[in-house]
Amino acid sequence: MLTPFTHFYPYSIKLSSKGFDGLKEYVDKRCNFDEVYILLDENIREFCYPFLIGSCPAFSEAKIIQISSGENFKSIESCKIIWDELTKNQASRNGVLINLGGGVICDLGGFAASTFKRGIDFINIPTTLLSMVDASAGGKLGLDYQHLKNQVGLFNNPQAIFINPNFLRTLPKTELLSGFAEVIKHALVADKAYWEAIESTSVAQIKWKEVIEKSIEIKSKIVHKDPGEKNERKKLNFGHTIGHALESYSLTINTRMALLHGEAVAIGMIIESYLSYKKTGLSHEELDKISSYIKSLFNLVVFPKKSFNNLYEFMLNDKKNKKGEVNFTLLNSIGKSKIGISCKKEEIKDAFEYYSNIVV
Amino acid sequence: MLTPFTHFYPYSIKLSSKGFDGLKEYVDKRCNFDEVYILLDENIREFCYPFLIGSCPAFSEAKIIQISSGENFKSIESCKIIWDELTKNQASRNGVLINLGGGVICDLGGFAASTFKRGIDFINIPTTLLSMVDASAGGKLGLDYQHLKNQVGLFNNPQAIFINPNFLRTLPKTELLSGFAEVIKHALVADKAYWEAIESTSVAQIKWKEVIEKSIEIKSKIVHKDPGEKNERKKLNFGHTIGHALESYSLTINTRMALLHGEAVAIGMIIESYLSYKKTGLSHEELDKISSYIKSLFNLVVFPKKSFNNLYEFMLNDKKNKKGEVNFTLLNSIGKSKIGISCKKEEIKDAFEYYSNIVV
Repeated sequence: MLTPFTHFYPYSIKLSSKGFDGLKEYVDKRCNFDEVYILLDENIREFCYPFLIGSCPAFSEAKIIQISSGENFKSIESCKIIWDELTKNQASRNGVLINLGGGVICDLGGFAASTFKRGIDFINIPTTLLSMVDASAGGKLGLDYQHLKNQVGLFNNPQAIFINPNFLRTLPKTELLSGFAEVIKHALVADKAYWEAIESTSVAQIKWKEVIEKSIEIKSKIVHKDPGEKNERKKLNFGHTIGHALESYSLTINTRMALLHGEAVAIGMIIESYLSYKKTGLSHEELDKISSYIKSLFNLVVFPKKSFNNLYEFMLNDKKNKKGEVNFTLLNSIGKSKIGISCKKEEIKDAFEYYSNIVV
Repeated sequence: MLTPFTHFYPYSIKLSSKGFDGLKEYVDKRCNFDEVYILLDENIREFCYPFLIGSCPAFSEAKIIQISSGENFKSIESCKIIWDELTKNQASRNGVLINLGGGVICDLGGFAASTFKRGIDFINIPTTLLSMVDASAGGKLGLDYQHLKNQVGLFNNPQAIFINPNFLRTLPKTELLSGFAEVIKHALVADKAYWEAIESTSVAQIKWKEVIEKSIEIKSKIVHKDPGEKNERKKLNFGHTIGHALESYSLTINTRMALLHGEAVAIGMIIESYLSYKKTGLSHEELDKISSYIKSLFNLVVFPKKSFNNLYEFMLNDKKNKKGEVNFTLLNSIGKSKIGISCKKEEIKDAFEYYSNIVV
């Protein structure tokens, strides 16, 4: 058994800068190493896979399944590559898939494993800040479909998660910041003291291991209360109704210039903070603080006005909606959030206007 | 709440020859009728859909999603048609998919619903004997992939099942018999008295409502003990290790002449009864009884000897296996079964020989 540092998930999360204690032991109990499959992309293969093998040589016997890196490969076609490789190797239900990578690898690999022969075990080894604090835990799996984020997916848990913050050294700064957007979100929706701590520290000074631990703690408490996202868990969608629409839209217009998930969520948090100011009592002072802080960290882009109708179409497809209205999680104040707030098209348009004005 | 006639499933099964009591009430509580989707194929649309609308006129407002009939359309391509239609109509998570049809519709529709936006509700209205006694209940969902039966799938339950035996009147005799193979299986693995009752009644005299009720009772008791198919539930795979291989193989050689599921399982039960005679103590007298009874009902086909190696490859891919060996559920005697019996290639070949000899 691994050493869990949170009791709220039904599986173990091991956070250590030293290696992957317990990973080999888990696999040894479960199956032979020729029944282990490692899912990765070309970047992970170059920068992260050698570190895993160096620390656990037995895994060099595992079969590698490689897909292309990037959000636009979080697709049914990539999923078929995984199913095909497992089928070709006659993987049995005792097989284990290790997802070594960021959010795309963890989400897609988890979905492929959960649906292969009605489900084989999978283990996440997140390599990005985003996947360490968010994507690797919580059970949300899936892929993008028809340009809609996670339109196809399911809820299922990994057998275990192994987090090694040393992987963050392999990460470009934009990717690190993309994950940091989720850290900011965790603070904003649930923990004012956490917000104050991160806001008063420069990103270069942040102790990542502590931040990862704190963010996982916040998320796991919320998910524990509502794993299937009927109520409480929707809090974690702050910034994401707008963020997912921006991300999806940016993928349709130019895949090479597409926004990273966290970049889109950062913009989404500014716009949804304005909606919070209008609808749920967030003070103008706190709105300013949030906007300034995000602006100081992220390279914010402006969307042309004429794109609003397209963006609104994406919002109508958001999974949290009832038919025909767009639902938001908004803030009452920093550290306190409220779910299920329906906003009108005009109100959302005004909030985009606010964002455009502070960015230019 | 519907009136369940079994307490072993976590959802309601309503069996009635009078209509679909409770179906409209369920939907009314859940969503508007424009959020109801009915999945069917061209045959169901002609023969069964009018009966549903006649008995519940409100459902004429529901949107129809039509796929092509037949096992070779239990595919990822058909699944994409369902996802596409739900996406096009901006179906929300409050939407409900009604699977009106046989095993393909119930299995595939359940999978598509369970993975659309990480899961919307679905209701099964089985129209064939096979789906009434087997496919609509128990939570096994999926599709065929790379010519392998249910290679992609998951476990999830419908919200409710409505069974109306009157639909059986629309069924060709071959389809009725295909479902009857599962009835025979239920008797063989778990209930000697049930076996004696069906064996002594001509098919034309069978009271279908009673048979459906009894078969669901046997299956639900087994599934209740082991929903994820780790142990006890494997009993229900009697006849299926061979049966699935035959069915998959027949789909690859000639889709128009492909064996129906129950036809393949009927042959599988003869062959696996012979293995039971050799391996788990089934008496020769009971082996004869089983073989003669199945032979008297089904139009049995012979596979050329040279096809055995291909069939064996399919068996190696069976989901119950550990890597590299083929596992069976076999009979100790009629009404008593044992799981996890590994058989060698030569033993399986001998059992095929036995089958070929009694058929010609």
